[in-house]
Amino acid sequence: MSVTVMSSPSDSPLLGVLGGMGPLAAADFLAKLAEETPATRDQEHIPYVAWGVPQIPDRPAAILGGGASPLPQMLRGIAALKQAGAQAIAIACNTAHYWHDDLLREGGLPILHIADAACDLLAERSITAGSVGLIGTEGTLQAGFFQQRLAARGLGCIIGSAEDRQRLMLPAIAAVKANDLPLAHTLAVQAVLRLHEAGARAVVLACTETPLAIDHAPSAAAPLCIDATRALARACVAWHRRASKARGDA
Amino acid sequence: MSVTVMSSPSDSPLLGVLGGMGPLAAADFLAKLAEETPATRDQEHIPYVAWGVPQIPDRPAAILGGGASPLPQMLRGIAALKQAGAQAIAIACNTAHYWHDDLLREGGLPILHIADAACDLLAERSITAGSVGLIGTEGTLQAGFFQQRLAARGLGCIIGSAEDRQRLMLPAIAAVKANDLPLAHTLAVQAVLRLHEAGARAVVLACTETPLAIDHAPSAAAPLCIDATRALARACVAWHRRASKARGDA
Repeated sequence: MSVTVMSSPSDSPLLGVLGGMGPLAAADFLAKLAEETPATRDQEHIPYVAWGVPQIPDRPAAILGGGASPLPQMLRGIAALKQAGAQAIAIACNTAHYWHDDLLREGGLPILHIADAACDLLAERSITAGSVGLIGTEGTLQAGFFQQRLAARGLGCIIGSAEDRQRLMLPAIAAVKANDLPLAHTLAVQAVLRLHEAGARAVVLACTETPLAIDHAPSAAAPLCIDATRALARACVAWHRRASKARGDA
Repeated sequence: MSVTVMSSPSDSPLLGVLGGMGPLAAADFLAKLAEETPATRDQEHIPYVAWGVPQIPDRPAAILGGGASPLPQMLRGIAALKQAGAQAIAIACNTAHYWHDDLLREGGLPILHIADAACDLLAERSITAGSVGLIGTEGTLQAGFFQQRLAARGLGCIIGSAEDRQRLMLPAIAAVKANDLPLAHTLAVQAVLRLHEAGARAVVLACTETPLAIDHAPSAAAPLCIDATRALARACVAWHRRASKARGDA
């Protein structure tokens, strides 16, 4: 049987989702993509194809030195998504954006950047001056792409002390991966409030595990947080609107 | 640049997930797949590729008469998943299993059946005699594949009165789609308890929306429920274990 897989011009533009880093992050992103889409029926939701292959080298280890590069496996995922008809890529992992420029150059598709999306959401909330906090893996913090983008928007960045990161932020991320959400919640809330005390007007949750920790229960930290995963979902909705319009205008 | 997309023999077997029916069902299934996998680190999770294209005709309308068939779009999804290297298919929609035999014959890949998975979970809970309740769309109930599989295991099936279905079950499903989880929860809990009063020893939640409604808050209904979505995730974990072993033995 012959089946045409590539999208035809009449189709709704297809989003490619690079997941598998970690296993729950893509599911959380896909749920937020559905939540952020202003749809009144199933058929108005954004079509996607998702590559969720977790057999990929650890991202922070590769950035911090000594670990194998995940780039070949990520490119393999983008190639599969492109072959399936994807017209743009969203990566459901903050740390993986360290390789954004390589993936863009080698992958042959536009890639929405999660840090740009988070900056757009800060602007929507009228946070255009002062400093914001940043919670991420040590790989994300050392890579610097969030700090650079915040600076380009005139925003300072507070990452907290090395002691706080070791005591609160990294254990919160590890607790989510170990499925201990009550512990993760307690640690993540403290981490956000510490950054707020240090002068952060808002705190960007720049690790896909941290929104799961914060959202586990109500807290004083929640209103301060910018969820980078949800920001990326909103950017994908905006991309889909633009791509649909461009297709309609063509 | 040339990138090989097909899995190599040394890879972990790749699961194909046919989603998009409705938009949240595949995200919920993928989260349950991660939860049900006995992994101690990211890399031990099951690799998947998911096709989430909701631009597909309504399934219940097609079964109940008058609606266009979703079969061509589902086959297009399976073809994309196969091309991406998937070795078996899980369909994150109960009603879509009405076309299981067509998809199996035309799609060229094994397809795990959600009703077989639910029956396996009932057996694990030692429910091997008497009757169980069934909550699903009118399309799923009329299609009969759950009732047939339950009967083959020696189990009767209670679907409740037409009045209860119109008053409780269908509005509960609609409320999830409209993102009104408190209302959906109240209705779904009543629906489960009504089936229990009618003699059901357990109730199979055979619509991907209903577990979201039941799990919204604790209730007396929860311990009675068999979540077909979670059952399918467990069947996928078992498939992956078998497929990995067969590959290792080859």
